[in-house]
Amino acid sequence: MTVEDHSLRLLLAGIDTYSQPVVYMHEDCHVCRSEGFRALARVRIDCGDRWVIASLNVVTDGDWLPVDAAALSDTAWAALQPGDGARGVFSHPEPPAAASVIRAKVYGERLGQAQFDTIMRDALAQRLSDLDLAAFVTACAADRLDFDETIGLTRAMQGAGETLDWGDRLVLDKHCVGGLPGNRTTPIVVAIVAAAGHLIPKTSSRAITSPAGTADTMEVMAPVALDIPAMRRVVEAQGGCIVWGGGLRLSPVDDILIRIERPLDFDSEGQLVASVLSKKAAAGAKRVVIDIPVGPTAKVRSQAAAAALSARLEAVAEAIGLDLMIQISDGSQPVGQGIGPALEAMDVLKVLRRDPDAPADLRDRALNLARVLLDMGGGTAARHNRARELLDSGEAERRFMAICEAQGGFAEPQFAPHRMPVVAPRDGMVTAIDNRRIARTAKLAGAPQRPRAGVLLRAQRGDTVHRGAPLFEIHAETPGELAYAQDYAASHPAMFRIEEPS
Amino acid sequence: MTVEDHSLRLLLAGIDTYSQPVVYMHEDCHVCRSEGFRALARVRIDCGDRWVIASLNVVTDGDWLPVDAAALSDTAWAALQPGDGARGVFSHPEPPAAASVIRAKVYGERLGQAQFDTIMRDALAQRLSDLDLAAFVTACAADRLDFDETIGLTRAMQGAGETLDWGDRLVLDKHCVGGLPGNRTTPIVVAIVAAAGHLIPKTSSRAITSPAGTADTMEVMAPVALDIPAMRRVVEAQGGCIVWGGGLRLSPVDDILIRIERPLDFDSEGQLVASVLSKKAAAGAKRVVIDIPVGPTAKVRSQAAAAALSARLEAVAEAIGLDLMIQISDGSQPVGQGIGPALEAMDVLKVLRRDPDAPADLRDRALNLARVLLDMGGGTAARHNRARELLDSGEAERRFMAICEAQGGFAEPQFAPHRMPVVAPRDGMVTAIDNRRIARTAKLAGAPQRPRAGVLLRAQRGDTVHRGAPLFEIHAETPGELAYAQDYAASHPAMFRIEEPS
Repeated sequence: MTVEDHSLRLLLAGIDTYSQPVVYMHEDCHVCRSEGFRALARVRIDCGDRWVIASLNVVTDGDWLPVDAAALSDTAWAALQPGDGARGVFSHPEPPAAASVIRAKVYGERLGQAQFDTIMRDALAQRLSDLDLAAFVTACAADRLDFDETIGLTRAMQGAGETLDWGDRLVLDKHCVGGLPGNRTTPIVVAIVAAAGHLIPKTSSRAITSPAGTADTMEVMAPVALDIPAMRRVVEAQGGCIVWGGGLRLSPVDDILIRIERPLDFDSEGQLVASVLSKKAAAGAKRVVIDIPVGPTAKVRSQAAAAALSARLEAVAEAIGLDLMIQISDGSQPVGQGIGPALEAMDVLKVLRRDPDAPADLRDRALNLARVLLDMGGGTAARHNRARELLDSGEAERRFMAICEAQGGFAEPQFAPHRMPVVAPRDGMVTAIDNRRIARTAKLAGAPQRPRAGVLLRAQRGDTVHRGAPLFEIHAETPGELAYAQDYAASHPAMFRIEEPS
Repeated sequence: MTVEDHSLRLLLAGIDTYSQPVVYMHEDCHVCRSEGFRALARVRIDCGDRWVIASLNVVTDGDWLPVDAAALSDTAWAALQPGDGARGVFSHPEPPAAASVIRAKVYGERLGQAQFDTIMRDALAQRLSDLDLAAFVTACAADRLDFDETIGLTRAMQGAGETLDWGDRLVLDKHCVGGLPGNRTTPIVVAIVAAAGHLIPKTSSRAITSPAGTADTMEVMAPVALDIPAMRRVVEAQGGCIVWGGGLRLSPVDDILIRIERPLDFDSEGQLVASVLSKKAAAGAKRVVIDIPVGPTAKVRSQAAAAALSARLEAVAEAIGLDLMIQISDGSQPVGQGIGPALEAMDVLKVLRRDPDAPADLRDRALNLARVLLDMGGGTAARHNRARELLDSGEAERRFMAICEAQGGFAEPQFAPHRMPVVAPRDGMVTAIDNRRIARTAKLAGAPQRPRAGVLLRAQRGDTVHRGAPLFEIHAETPGELAYAQDYAASHPAMFRIEEPS
């Protein structure tokens, strides 16, 4: 196509740009000059039969990059997998087909199945820039996806990755629409349902905007980064697992979109539904219970919003062949005492171990969800009290420990070395707790990157407290993070509303 | 605020990330670890009394960055201006106020003046990520700004930068709503209007998506990167100038938004109007003529779209105190013969020099606009033929040369070394020319980065051509770019529609 040589030696830049392919080229490089590439240009790089579209950063100064070489960010390197001394061929990319589809959506067109498939295909192949993805996320935010489009997006997301096949066995699953700190029912529910003899191959995410995801909490107690064969072995042996879904390529575009959605933090009912249900369908689930906590500072803030979300979940589930049961629950305050991976793991273990100090709210929520799943699982053994029997008899605990061992070995969660109480500024009754600010405090303390960091609640809604009594403790692994979180807590005293007795 | 040291030595990374502040930190750096910063995190860096929010790229491998230092991209370095051996203090930024305003707009709220001011302030201070900016651009695309919001955005954009003050003198200005290759009337209009004794301090942009902006074309003939004092000297001496607006901080957020708008390529009438009128107001203009070319492959494609755009331009102009006159013109084919900086400059000079080969369409368009401006300028000397008299007498040419000298000296445009004709595939009449594909060919040939690159038209709409006769020539500065453009032209033969005589 061209008479000039447009190839350069490829080097590993050793720069992590978080899933964004970036190529570094010297400003005096002949390819940059002859192609007229400018900083942030989208550049196609071919190497063997692989290719990628990367964003260009121009090196204007620095000895680390020779003029006749191009350096690749970690993601670009992984996509091209160049051999020793390999050269890349550089060219202007054709605009990806998805760009015009995104444009159509921005302009208010309704998208069909083929169009969603196009977006997912180009996103997965790293052909869309972060700006393209941000435009797509924005164009779908705030209810700009209708039911049919949500179905199309869900199918496209599922279709872009692997789907687990469990034969004709009945596979159960659960999901919670987040936003409620400490609501870590999954390990308990999986243990009960697996102990009852059902199949529940649970994949969970790491925290996106919260202080802990289920995968973060579970990882305190057992390895979670299993591949599909290892996950299968656990499930075949124990009936259930709690593994990190991110490494399994189940609906992998979800992770690409989440990278953009997280910093933008727009709620989109359509994207939420597609994200949840595409992963369930990809994991091979047939019957799923979904917990929607509702509260003024939860993700879903009103009964009306919960009803709208339920309607959309049900419509999409029906379209893709999932049996769905929805539980609307109280989301007015955090669940359990611990917020942060290790502190939440301690709550989970207390419930499984029938510890007298086990948080009753976490136990009740887990039992409710397990009961619904056992009902959906059917069979002659379904009795009303079966879930509680399995928990109270210790069968669920034994099954949980067996699952941990099968995943690579159990570890007991530990407390963080730096702790500081936050006390009540006056006598009175706790009438409200702000989930979002509690979560922010735990994150500033280091959660989830620091597994032992977080918040340990000492008071609940309805408790009467005295001035100077602890409302919660901040736990941190470093003094700096403790100071950060403490500073935030001190400047947001309304995190706990305490009203004087009237 | 914290008990740990969160400072690092600052180095210049020597990486051009195109106006995007980026900080490179080693994965083993103590600040990264203690703050839990991950790749692409937004990081606040304080240095003296300056601060910036940058995106983090984590260096995972490479000797070029010491563990106890952080390297800054060119933009981040310019924003902080660290002295020799200076240290930066790193922290988690508060979310910028603009983020919640952008969110409100995404959710369909109408924004008021204070909210637009907030977005512009944070954008100018580099506190918004590219994702935030992409969300804002997307949320305003496709007519999602109403008239009042467009007024608010225009005022906010103007208010975020400098405004030139010309006392109580009447300042004229012109603008063309792009999309029409070769439509380079500005140098001719400025020369005529200045020769008539009016004040026309014209600031122009470089190409955004086109093969040449007025600043690119003018730069072939004279320096355009003047600062405000130098521009004032030119205007005081000659009545007019044609300088690059990008360096003057007139509506500087426009340049930030354009960096995002260009790759996304969404049309937004509101953003277009705010971009145009905020710059005119900031340049101190009082009376402005705006040319809107209409054609199937121009930026504005129908009379209805032109009417809608005119209505919005007029409403906003009235609100901010600008006298506006709108000219709707024929946008069905390129103007003049040359497309690309040097080739367009040649057309401009032919018109000013009354060359018998001067393109009549360019001359007519420039005269029309100059006539309207002279009418708006008023005064006793306003006569119907004044514009043509000034052009035909050579007064406009002399004034243009004087302006070039005042800007730093005139240079004669030159042809590119590599040229290749594209010929008619059959006998017939040229019935349509695709502006967008012609522009794309010129860009692939290297325009505007290569000033002599572009397309030289050899046939117009209505011309009868014979098989093998040249339709246009591709001009390039390198053989590689010539091959690129030629390849594109060969695979898009419909660029010229040639119909057999019936």
